[in-house]
Amino acid sequence: MRSVALRVSTRRLVSSSTRANASVQSSLSIEKFPPKSTIFSLIQPTGKIHLGNYLGALRGWADLLKVDSPQSKFIFGVADLHALTMPTEPLQLKQHRYEAMASLIAAGLDPERCIVFHQSTVPEHTELNWYLVCLAGMGQLNRMTQWKLKAHQALTSSIFEEAVLEKTRAGVLLYPVLQTADILIYKSTHVPVGDDQTQHLELCRTVANTFNHTYKTKFFPLPKTLLTPASKVLALRNPSKKMSKSDADQNSSIYLTESPDTIAKKVRKATTDSIQGPLYYDPETRPGVSNLINIVAGINRASVEDTVRDLAWVKDHKQLKDHVTEVVVEEFREKRHMFDHLMGDLGYLDSVSKQGTERAREIALKNIKEVRALMGLN
Amino acid sequence: MRSVALRVSTRRLVSSSTRANASVQSSLSIEKFPPKSTIFSLIQPTGKIHLGNYLGALRGWADLLKVDSPQSKFIFGVADLHALTMPTEPLQLKQHRYEAMASLIAAGLDPERCIVFHQSTVPEHTELNWYLVCLAGMGQLNRMTQWKLKAHQALTSSIFEEAVLEKTRAGVLLYPVLQTADILIYKSTHVPVGDDQTQHLELCRTVANTFNHTYKTKFFPLPKTLLTPASKVLALRNPSKKMSKSDADQNSSIYLTESPDTIAKKVRKATTDSIQGPLYYDPETRPGVSNLINIVAGINRASVEDTVRDLAWVKDHKQLKDHVTEVVVEEFREKRHMFDHLMGDLGYLDSVSKQGTERAREIALKNIKEVRALMGLN
Repeated sequence: MRSVALRVSTRRLVSSSTRANASVQSSLSIEKFPPKSTIFSLIQPTGKIHLGNYLGALRGWADLLKVDSPQSKFIFGVADLHALTMPTEPLQLKQHRYEAMASLIAAGLDPERCIVFHQSTVPEHTELNWYLVCLAGMGQLNRMTQWKLKAHQALTSSIFEEAVLEKTRAGVLLYPVLQTADILIYKSTHVPVGDDQTQHLELCRTVANTFNHTYKTKFFPLPKTLLTPASKVLALRNPSKKMSKSDADQNSSIYLTESPDTIAKKVRKATTDSIQGPLYYDPETRPGVSNLINIVAGINRASVEDTVRDLAWVKDHKQLKDHVTEVVVEEFREKRHMFDHLMGDLGYLDSVSKQGTERAREIALKNIKEVRALMGLN
Repeated sequence: MRSVALRVSTRRLVSSSTRANASVQSSLSIEKFPPKSTIFSLIQPTGKIHLGNYLGALRGWADLLKVDSPQSKFIFGVADLHALTMPTEPLQLKQHRYEAMASLIAAGLDPERCIVFHQSTVPEHTELNWYLVCLAGMGQLNRMTQWKLKAHQALTSSIFEEAVLEKTRAGVLLYPVLQTADILIYKSTHVPVGDDQTQHLELCRTVANTFNHTYKTKFFPLPKTLLTPASKVLALRNPSKKMSKSDADQNSSIYLTESPDTIAKKVRKATTDSIQGPLYYDPETRPGVSNLINIVAGINRASVEDTVRDLAWVKDHKQLKDHVTEVVVEEFREKRHMFDHLMGDLGYLDSVSKQGTERAREIALKNIKEVRALMGLN
C-alpha cells in the first residue's frame, strides 16, 4: 500500500459527475416533510440485505422515523407481489419473505413506531392495481426504462418487438402500475426511493392525476419522491457499477449478516488504485477510494468533505480499509445479532407481519371503499 | 307482404355456412357436465339486455340450472371490473350494475339455486389476476383477436404498433387475464360463453396449465367451454351482423324491458327480403327471414327444422312477423315485469348481491389461500 494523505479537492468535487455531486448534496440533510404526511416504501424480498440496500434504503427509512412530524404515518413493507414478476421458487420466496421482514426490523424499523407488513397480505393493493391498469396508457408503460432493461428491449424502441413479447411475461410491464397502487392505496404523500425509481414515481403521479381528473376528485395526493440522504454504494471489486446481490464476484458485496472476519476480508480485497501522493475524493478518477470514503460518510451520516477532514490521520490504503472495516462492522454488529435472533423466532416475525397487515389494511380498506364509490362500484 | 310458404330446404341447410349449421346443431341439445362441476360465467353491465344477450347467454344459463347434476355449483355474475376497461361514467356504471343484476334474476337465475354476485365485490379476483399476470406471456396476449379489435390494431400484426400503444390503456390488454382469474378463482370446470370468447378460454387453459406446471400441482382444472344451445341473434334491420346494444339503428335490437307495442313495431320493421314463392330457411340468401325463424326456434328451444314444420300454417312475411312478436312478447312478459319490480326494489337487489358476495367469497378465500401457499406466499 502506498502512503497517501486524504484530502478533498474542491475543484475536483465541483467538476465531478452530477451523480456524485447529488450524493454529496443529499447526504447533508434529510429532506423535510410536513405533519400528517404518509411515508411509504417497500423492499423486494430478494434475500440478504447488502450495504447498498442498507445505506440506500433501510437506514434512511429508519432515520425518517426520528423526524419530528406530528400525525405522520410511516408504512414500510416487503414487496412480495413484485417478487413474482421474476421466476421464484416457492420455498425460497417463503424464506426471503422472512429475511426481508427481519432485515427491516433489524435495520431499525421498530414495528411499534411504523407499520411493517408484507404487501401481498393486503389484497387492496391488487384491487387498486386493476383500477389503475384501466387508466394507465400502454405507451407510458412502454417508455419505462426498467421495463426495457428487464425485457431486454432496445431503450430507444417505441414499439414492443415481437421477440421481446414472446419471452416476456405481462407482470414485467405491469410492475410500475402495481407500484403505483402500493403507493396510492395509502394515499401516500412521500416515497423514499432510489433514483432508479424516479421514472416510476413520475408514472405514479401521472396515473394519480388521471384518476383524479377522470373521476372529478382530488382524492389521491400526487406523491413526492423523498431522496434519502445516502450516497450510492458501488461494488467493492468493480466500482463502476452498483453493489448488487447478483454480482458474480461476491467479494463485491457486504451483507448485513456477515461476520466481522468476512467483512474485513472483502474490504481488504476492494479495488482501489495505484495513484500515489495525497489521497483525494474524486469518483471519476479514483472510484474505488471514493466509494470507500462514501461508505464511511454514509454510515456516519456526514458529508464527504467532513469525512475526509476527519480522516486526515489516514496515511495509506490499508489504514483506510481498516477504518472502513471497523465502521461497517460496528454499524452492523447489533443489527446482525438482531437479524439472527429474529430469524430464530419466526413466530414473532409472523406476529409482527400479522399486526402490520391489520394496521395497513385498516387504511387500505377505508381508501378502497372511497375509490369504489368514486368509480360507481357501490 | 308477399304470400309465401315456410319450408326447410334440406339441400340448402347442408350447403349453408358452418356457423348456421353450428347454430342448428347446438340448439338440439344441452351439453352435458358431470356431478361436482363448477359452472361459471359473467355478463358485462352494459345496460339493457337484448334478445341476443338473452338467448345467447342468460336463458342458456338458467336452463343449465335445470340439469340434474348432483353437487355441482353454479356461479353467475356481473363483470363490473371488466366494464372499467372502457370509459365508464360512475353514475351510469352504478345504474348498469343494478340493471345487470336485475336482468340475471329476471332471466331465471334464481339466487336460491345459484350464486349471483358482482365480480368487483370479491377482491380475490384481482388478487389472482396479479398472480396470473406474472405468468401470462405478452406474446400470447398480443395474439388475442378481441384485444386487436378493441385496440384497433391490425389483426395480422405481431408487434404492438406505436400509434396503438399511445391511445390504448393497459386494461384492454389485460382483459383476458382477469377473465382467466374470474374462472380459476372458483376452480371452475365449465364456462358457458359465446364463440367470440373461445380464444380467451384457450388462454385461460394455457395460463392454468402454466400455473400447474410452474408450481408442480394439479390445483387448477382446465375449464371446458360450454356452448349454450342458442343460435346467434342478428340485427333485425341488418341481419349481416349481430344484434347489439351499440347499433346505430335501435330498431335492430329488442330489449327485455320493452313494451309489447315497441316489440311489435320493431319486428314489423325487420328487414326480410323480396323473394316470392315458398319460404325457406337459408341464412345466406335469406338472412332476415332465417334470423326470424332462428329467434322462434331459440325461444322454443326447438330445432330450426321442427320450427319450420310447426310454422307450416304461416303464409306470408306478415304472419311470420306477427308470430315472432307474439313469441317474443310472451317470452319476455313475466321477465319484463320482474325486471321492473326488481329495479323498484334496490334494497332487495343489494341483499341478493351481498348474499352472493358472501357465498362466492367463501369459495374464493379458500382457493386463494391454497394458491398463496403453493406460491410460497404463506
